[in-house]
Amino acid sequence: MKPCEEEEEQGGAAAAGGGGDPWKECAELAVQLALRAGQIIRKALTEEKQVSTKTSAADLVTETDHFVENLIISVLKEKFPSHRFIAEESTAAGSKCVLTDSPTWIIDPVDGTCNFVHRFPTVAVSIGFAVNRELEFGVIYHCTEERLYTGRRGQGAFCNDKRLQVSKETDISKALILTEIGPKRDPATLKLFLGNIERLLKAQAHGVRVIGSSTLALCHLAAGAADAYYQFGLHCWDLAAATVIIREAGGTVIDTSGGPLDLMSCRVIAAGTREMAMFIAQEIQTIHYRRDDEN
Amino acid sequence: MKPCEEEEEQGGAAAAGGGGDPWKECAELAVQLALRAGQIIRKALTEEKQVSTKTSAADLVTETDHFVENLIISVLKEKFPSHRFIAEESTAAGSKCVLTDSPTWIIDPVDGTCNFVHRFPTVAVSIGFAVNRELEFGVIYHCTEERLYTGRRGQGAFCNDKRLQVSKETDISKALILTEIGPKRDPATLKLFLGNIERLLKAQAHGVRVIGSSTLALCHLAAGAADAYYQFGLHCWDLAAATVIIREAGGTVIDTSGGPLDLMSCRVIAAGTREMAMFIAQEIQTIHYRRDDEN
Repeated sequence: MKPCEEEEEQGGAAAAGGGGDPWKECAELAVQLALRAGQIIRKALTEEKQVSTKTSAADLVTETDHFVENLIISVLKEKFPSHRFIAEESTAAGSKCVLTDSPTWIIDPVDGTCNFVHRFPTVAVSIGFAVNRELEFGVIYHCTEERLYTGRRGQGAFCNDKRLQVSKETDISKALILTEIGPKRDPATLKLFLGNIERLLKAQAHGVRVIGSSTLALCHLAAGAADAYYQFGLHCWDLAAATVIIREAGGTVIDTSGGPLDLMSCRVIAAGTREMAMFIAQEIQTIHYRRDDEN
Repeated sequence: MKPCEEEEEQGGAAAAGGGGDPWKECAELAVQLALRAGQIIRKALTEEKQVSTKTSAADLVTETDHFVENLIISVLKEKFPSHRFIAEESTAAGSKCVLTDSPTWIIDPVDGTCNFVHRFPTVAVSIGFAVNRELEFGVIYHCTEERLYTGRRGQGAFCNDKRLQVSKETDISKALILTEIGPKRDPATLKLFLGNIERLLKAQAHGVRVIGSSTLALCHLAAGAADAYYQFGLHCWDLAAATVIIREAGGTVIDTSGGPLDLMSCRVIAAGTREMAMFIAQEIQTIHYRRDDEN
C-alpha cells in the first residue's frame, strides 16, 4: 500500500498531508500532542497520585497514564478516523495489540511510570507511527527536561532541532551500556537480569546505567551518550518511536538473537554500531517474555 | 572552636563573613564557583576528551577534572589562605585526605566522570565545607540540567530556590532505590554489588536506578524523588555536600552498618526515613573499600 492511496480511499488524503510528504501532518500533530501531554505530565508530577498495579507489583499505572492516552488517541481519531492505535493502557485494558498494514499509531502516554510515581524526573511521552508495518516517524518528549526527540524515516533524527548522531564505538571496554529491569521480578528472571549485567561488566564495559525509562535510554543512545542498550520485557510502545530516531541517527536496532528487530517480541538490542550490537547479542542470556501480539 | 574565632586568629574573619553568619561568604562563593565550573563542564561535554584511568579501568579522569579542580581551589586559596582542601584529583595525585578541625573544602570537580566522557548528561560539580569536622554547607550543580542544589546547616536545602523535602516512605515495597557500581570490578565485588540489588528487588522494591553520579543520585534523594540510596566505594568528596543537603531536607545519612556516618569510610546509606535506612542496612552485604584517610 502506498500511504496516500489508502488515505484517499478513506477520504483522509488531505488530513494526512500532501502527496510528496504523505505523513507530514501526522508527524506535526504528533509533536503538538507530545508537547501538550508533556505539560500535563509535568504538572501531575508534583501532585498526589492514585497508583494501581498491572502485571506485577512493579508494573504501575496512574490516572495520568489513562488521561494522557485518552487525550492523544481522541485527538488523533477525530483527525484520522481510519487509522489504528496500539497504546499501553488500551492494551492493558484488553485491546488487541496487532500491527497491520494500516497506518498505526503506537503510543506510550507515560514512559517511566514508576519514575513518575516517585517524582523521579526521567519521564517521557512516546508516539510512533507505522504504515505497511514500517516505522515512519517517532516523537519522544522528555517531560521534565523539555527535550523533544524526533525522527522521520529518511529525514534524520533531532533533539530540539539539534541533529542526533550515535556513537561509533565498537569496543566493549570503552562502552557505556544502558538497560532496564523489566516488569517480571521472580528469582529466575532476576538471576538472568543481574547475570547479564555481570557479563558486561566482566567484559570491562565502562559502566551500566538503569534510568527507569526505556524510551529515554534509547534517546540517550541516539544522541551518542551511550554505546548500547538492551532489554527484555519492554513493549512495542517503548520501541516504536525510539527505533526510528535511533536508525535515523545512524544506529542499529536488532533482536536480542542478533537477527532483525521484531517490534512485537518484547526484546531489543540497540547500539551505535553493528559490531557493538552483535557483541551484546552474543554476551547476554535470553529472558523470556510473552510477545505483545500474543494476547 | 567557634568558626569566627579561628578565622580571627588566622586573620580571615572579614573574608569569611560577619559574626552572625560566619560562613555566608564562603557559601556564596561556593555557589559562584559551582556555576562557573558547570559552564566549563557543559562546554567541554561536547568536545573531544583526553581520558586516563586511575584505580581501575572504570575509574576515569579527564583534563577537565584537573582544570576545574585547580580553578576552584586557586580561587578559594586566594580568598581563604588558611583553609584546607580535600579534592578528588589532588588526592589521586598524592595529597593527604585528612579531615581536621580547620575549615575544610571538600571538592569533586566533575562527579560522574564516566558519564562526562560519554556525554551522558548526568554530571555535577560538588563543593562541601566542614568546620570542626562538622559539615556546614554543600553546593551541587547539575551541569546539563542547570539545577543548583544547596544546603546550609540549620537553614534548609534548596534546588534553584525551591525548598527540598525528602520522601517519608518507610515501606520497601513502595520504594525507589538508588545505587552506584563503584570503581572495583573484580568478580567477588561484582557478585556482592549485584547480590545487594537482588536482595532489594526480592524485598519488592519498586525499582533500582543507577545513574552514574553519586552526588546527583543523593540530590534526587534530597528532593524526595527516591526513597533510599546506598553505596560502597564512593569518596568523601561525593558525600560531603550531599550530606548537608539531605539532612537539611529532613533525611537520614548513616553508615552502611546502621551506625553514624563516617565521611572517610567510603560507604553510605541515605534515606528519607530512619526506618528505610535501617532496613537497607540490615539487607545489604558489605563491600570492602579502603578508607579515604588510609593513604
